[in-house]
Amino acid sequence: MRKIGVIGAGSWGIALSKVLADNGHDIVVWSIVEDEIKMLKEKKEHVDKLPGVKLPDSIKYTTSIQEAIDEKEIIILAVPSVFTRSTAKTMAPYVKKGQIVVCVAKGIEDKTLKTLAEIVTEEIPVAQVAVMCGPSHAEEVGAGLPTTLVAGAKEKVIAETIQDTFMNEVFRVYTSPDILGMELGGSLKNVIALAAGMADGLGYGDNTKAALITRGIAEISRLASKMGANMETLYGLTGIGDLIVTCESKHSRNRKAGMLIGQGYTMDEATKEVKMVVEGIFSAKAALALGKKYDVELPIIKEVNKVLFEDKKAKDAVTDLMLRDKRSENSVLEWEK
Amino acid sequence: MRKIGVIGAGSWGIALSKVLADNGHDIVVWSIVEDEIKMLKEKKEHVDKLPGVKLPDSIKYTTSIQEAIDEKEIIILAVPSVFTRSTAKTMAPYVKKGQIVVCVAKGIEDKTLKTLAEIVTEEIPVAQVAVMCGPSHAEEVGAGLPTTLVAGAKEKVIAETIQDTFMNEVFRVYTSPDILGMELGGSLKNVIALAAGMADGLGYGDNTKAALITRGIAEISRLASKMGANMETLYGLTGIGDLIVTCESKHSRNRKAGMLIGQGYTMDEATKEVKMVVEGIFSAKAALALGKKYDVELPIIKEVNKVLFEDKKAKDAVTDLMLRDKRSENSVLEWEK
Repeated sequence: MRKIGVIGAGSWGIALSKVLADNGHDIVVWSIVEDEIKMLKEKKEHVDKLPGVKLPDSIKYTTSIQEAIDEKEIIILAVPSVFTRSTAKTMAPYVKKGQIVVCVAKGIEDKTLKTLAEIVTEEIPVAQVAVMCGPSHAEEVGAGLPTTLVAGAKEKVIAETIQDTFMNEVFRVYTSPDILGMELGGSLKNVIALAAGMADGLGYGDNTKAALITRGIAEISRLASKMGANMETLYGLTGIGDLIVTCESKHSRNRKAGMLIGQGYTMDEATKEVKMVVEGIFSAKAALALGKKYDVELPIIKEVNKVLFEDKKAKDAVTDLMLRDKRSENSVLEWEK
Repeated sequence: MRKIGVIGAGSWGIALSKVLADNGHDIVVWSIVEDEIKMLKEKKEHVDKLPGVKLPDSIKYTTSIQEAIDEKEIIILAVPSVFTRSTAKTMAPYVKKGQIVVCVAKGIEDKTLKTLAEIVTEEIPVAQVAVMCGPSHAEEVGAGLPTTLVAGAKEKVIAETIQDTFMNEVFRVYTSPDILGMELGGSLKNVIALAAGMADGLGYGDNTKAALITRGIAEISRLASKMGANMETLYGLTGIGDLIVTCESKHSRNRKAGMLIGQGYTMDEATKEVKMVVEGIFSAKAALALGKKYDVELPIIKEVNKVLFEDKKAKDAVTDLMLRDKRSENSVLEWEK
């Protein structure tokens, strides 16, 4: 039994709190929103963000960030990526050397092009910063459906502590030392999900979507590997696995926004309709900037940017991708002659 | 304009004939079934196997295999994998040195564990044997939806000839020298599609399916790479791309058979219900034999075999997969400490 604080009461923070409490750990969930904490205490359910999922009585709730951090062996940081830096700043005075902070959101900061683990390491230098991600819609984890994830940390013992804490018969956790690869896969996948959604919106089929997913992960891998990540990670659960779930699932808002754009909505109309943050729109710009910085060709990401920000028609973008130069699938493979 | 023979008038042979005729080539389609040739000549449509797709008037049809081979620059071999060896034997006397034979089916011969290109090379040694595959349901190609494939050959010029011949604005063809990797991905994927279907049949969600796809391609890659294929190929269009389309699409019979088994049908009941060849059931055995021969651990393929041939319950197979030893995602990555 471990003492664990969960910072952020969104659908993912709540779903993970349930997994941990079911595993017998001692959980305190923090939110800055007083009404949200009151609702969770009274109803033992997040009626807005994870309706229908009854939470174990053992979970405690607080609006005091100090209470969620003090004496906790592990702190799960589950706020949306845009609030990661500000929340880490607020946490910093209370975190003691050696406490594990696990980032479970994904994103790239637009001005600095830094990942969330890099941001938290900057803001809370005493923490043992780790990450956990993989193909995992909160709704399905809340419903107890079999799910696999990866815990990433520089030190093996930290990753294994997280693995031990979360793992059960419907929640399988692998470990990895490649935090950067995990974070890049998780962030950049949303841009490809927009493209996959556009293809759906245009009425294209499974062939087209599978092509976008496969060529999409290929270009993300080229970029990530040039930045120092391992190709293996991009072709694992946190890369292609998470990309597949995001491109195929009805739960994905990036895919949904893409679909609307494919049907003829503008980017603004699509985001209004989806009513939630569409991470892929921010990541699209960041990905393009990273491609430029590291000199990597990103044909799909480039076309998504043109559709989002230069009014290019989605149909024309797909046609231009299909008609690019004839080439071999992998430049590294050698011909007999 | 090239002269091309298409051997086999199934849905895939017909869909490819349409692409080629639309591109302006001179096409003769062969089938052993006289009624089928008569129907194609009269209706310019394959009303059973690709209904609703009108075929260009320029396509010719024949029951003479010699007519489909004589003077053709390229011969597309599109019969089901179980008929590949016998059809190649029949073709052999008519094929001249240098004629290109492109295998577009997938499979592994159960007794010899050989791929289709290996079988054709054995039976028609004078031919330039090539392959073409990728995420491509015939129904969608017939409907003109954007599709990507890979043409594989030992010699670059052969792969590029096939690429040139097929490519148009909705049919993008890449090239590759890795025939073996392409064929192993295409054949073994059907076993994983059965597993993905079982998860669907059990009522599991997108998280579970993405996990099976991702861990599935990981174990296929380990095997293929030990057999001499390139990892890059398995993570490309003919590997993960084709696997995604097979696991997600309503058109896939392997997935459908798996779904029925997940819902409690026996293997025999499921194949009767699907009414077509379920390749994955044959490939499951072949994959297990290859794993043993090359000493590669294949946990998902092993569980699929237990469900198919040892009456293990699909639900127990998934639970056993989720509860395997705790491990790192990739054994090759190194920890800082």
